[in-house]
Amino acid sequence: MLVGVGAIGREIARLLLKKRGVKIVGAVDSAPNKIGMDLGEAIGLKEKLGVTICGSISELNVRGDVAIHATTSFLEKAYPQIIELIEMGFNVISTCEELSYPYIVSEELSRRIDEIAKEHNVVVLGTGINPGFLMDTLVIMLTAVCQDVRRIIVERIIDAAKRRLPFQIKIGAGLSIEEFRGKISRGEITGHVGLKQSISMVADALGLRLDGIIEEPIEPIIAEGEVRSAYITVKPGFVAGLSQRAHGIIDGKPFITLVFKAYIGAQKEYDSITIDGDPPIHERIEPCVHGDAGTAAIIVNAIPKVLKSPPGLKTMKDMPIPSATLGEIKR
Amino acid sequence: MLVGVGAIGREIARLLLKKRGVKIVGAVDSAPNKIGMDLGEAIGLKEKLGVTICGSISELNVRGDVAIHATTSFLEKAYPQIIELIEMGFNVISTCEELSYPYIVSEELSRRIDEIAKEHNVVVLGTGINPGFLMDTLVIMLTAVCQDVRRIIVERIIDAAKRRLPFQIKIGAGLSIEEFRGKISRGEITGHVGLKQSISMVADALGLRLDGIIEEPIEPIIAEGEVRSAYITVKPGFVAGLSQRAHGIIDGKPFITLVFKAYIGAQKEYDSITIDGDPPIHERIEPCVHGDAGTAAIIVNAIPKVLKSPPGLKTMKDMPIPSATLGEIKR
Repeated sequence: MLVGVGAIGREIARLLLKKRGVKIVGAVDSAPNKIGMDLGEAIGLKEKLGVTICGSISELNVRGDVAIHATTSFLEKAYPQIIELIEMGFNVISTCEELSYPYIVSEELSRRIDEIAKEHNVVVLGTGINPGFLMDTLVIMLTAVCQDVRRIIVERIIDAAKRRLPFQIKIGAGLSIEEFRGKISRGEITGHVGLKQSISMVADALGLRLDGIIEEPIEPIIAEGEVRSAYITVKPGFVAGLSQRAHGIIDGKPFITLVFKAYIGAQKEYDSITIDGDPPIHERIEPCVHGDAGTAAIIVNAIPKVLKSPPGLKTMKDMPIPSATLGEIKR
Repeated sequence: MLVGVGAIGREIARLLLKKRGVKIVGAVDSAPNKIGMDLGEAIGLKEKLGVTICGSISELNVRGDVAIHATTSFLEKAYPQIIELIEMGFNVISTCEELSYPYIVSEELSRRIDEIAKEHNVVVLGTGINPGFLMDTLVIMLTAVCQDVRRIIVERIIDAAKRRLPFQIKIGAGLSIEEFRGKISRGEITGHVGLKQSISMVADALGLRLDGIIEEPIEPIIAEGEVRSAYITVKPGFVAGLSQRAHGIIDGKPFITLVFKAYIGAQKEYDSITIDGDPPIHERIEPCVHGDAGTAAIIVNAIPKVLKSPPGLKTMKDMPIPSATLGEIKR
């Protein structure tokens, strides 16, 4: 079952249709232009799927094993939807960024999700490529070969020209510096959500006690020369994208630093993890993993693991080693 | 408890002494020059540890939670030792390469280890940096962001000049080509043990049905110019090290290929994983992870996970996401 038929929801639906052992039994989206539409049409297929998109979860009249939830980055907005899905008996796998490590947003809501999930014998997991993998789960995994770890630096550098238009708009591409600052201050540009979640998950897995997490203000990345995507041309001096940094602090110094940059014209796209440890680790995925494609993958690949997991609220660090699901998705 | 006080066993012992929450209660090694020695001396400390090295497991008169087993690469040789340790109530974490995925060596021995471990409510895990991590667990993990996987190529390239002398001897450094071929045919050089285990573990985790595994003959890597380590000088035309390749075959074609090269004078040392998938993944750790340091780390880091795991024979793909243990090792 699919809650949220936006860009990611559509990518997930298309992927689910390629897997054996899965049937999409329902779909929900609150956008007026999607309500009543057949899911097949909504995701760009020629044929209908016989699944009509409902405007709300309460209108659903279906049963199933798993609800894929892809409506929001924020826990508070996701919370009532997730509770409704749990109470209908669904395991919930969500792209909600804050849900990837929700304890730092609200202990109260996290505790309630855990309790109600256990009552209904289902699992709730927030995951995705980031948060959920590149800046947390993979970092945790790489520390396994270290006898000691003194410092961790993780970078994700994305050439936004290769992404869809909404992504480019989300990072402020094409704006003047003034417009960018205005949108940031009004919360119209939120940048990447999840750096705090990733830092907290890594710290928790490694048994580190952080003094706190410092998020630096989101900064624009200014085009030096003209740069362009298929949709947007950025003149020199205007905003090509954004840069974010967050630090997990121990003894007054950054122990974990995450750097996220997404801008049109990035010469090198990569995901890197540097561990100052014994032995030291310099790891890099280049080009960086495509966000939408990777998120759809990790969400769908989580299905068999979630179906086998004991109930409750989980984060990626609590789950078995994730892996691709190439054949049939089995219980 | 430590069974095997060779190069890896010593590195593990030194690491254990740095961790809180651990006490080494016994040590075993069959080498006559080590029997009766204090473990502290044997691992190069100035002070004694009050642990005398016994010549065999049966002489031990200690109880403990975990036995670290580091005596052999081969299941058949490890088997009676592991059974003895299980029957004494130890969880066993072993560097035995074949134990990392023992089912392909002997289903019978694997089944018996699993049964006897369950009877005694303990866990048996074979792990290490390779097999156990770089060419299997990490590969499995990276496929999690793929919607589809068509082909996997993993390389481990080691500059043997940076390793200890026994490693350099093990890969034939300094031999003539004829001497190398002779030692290979007499089994005096076995090369890296574990490529088959790694391929099988990846295939199992991804639900792939392999037609079979093909191991190419071990080939010498010939020095073009003179190359040297601190111990060995290799003249041009002589053997600098070795190259091994193995393939997991599906539909008559290699689906998984592992390439292992260790030689004196390797210009670039790296561990790389290439996944032809959606999205494609090009991952690289450079320089490659140091084998001895990394193996000691992953063995010790496995202790808290093993203590929390349900009993039986496990492989890394069955375990939770591995991670560094930075603070106290807790039950």
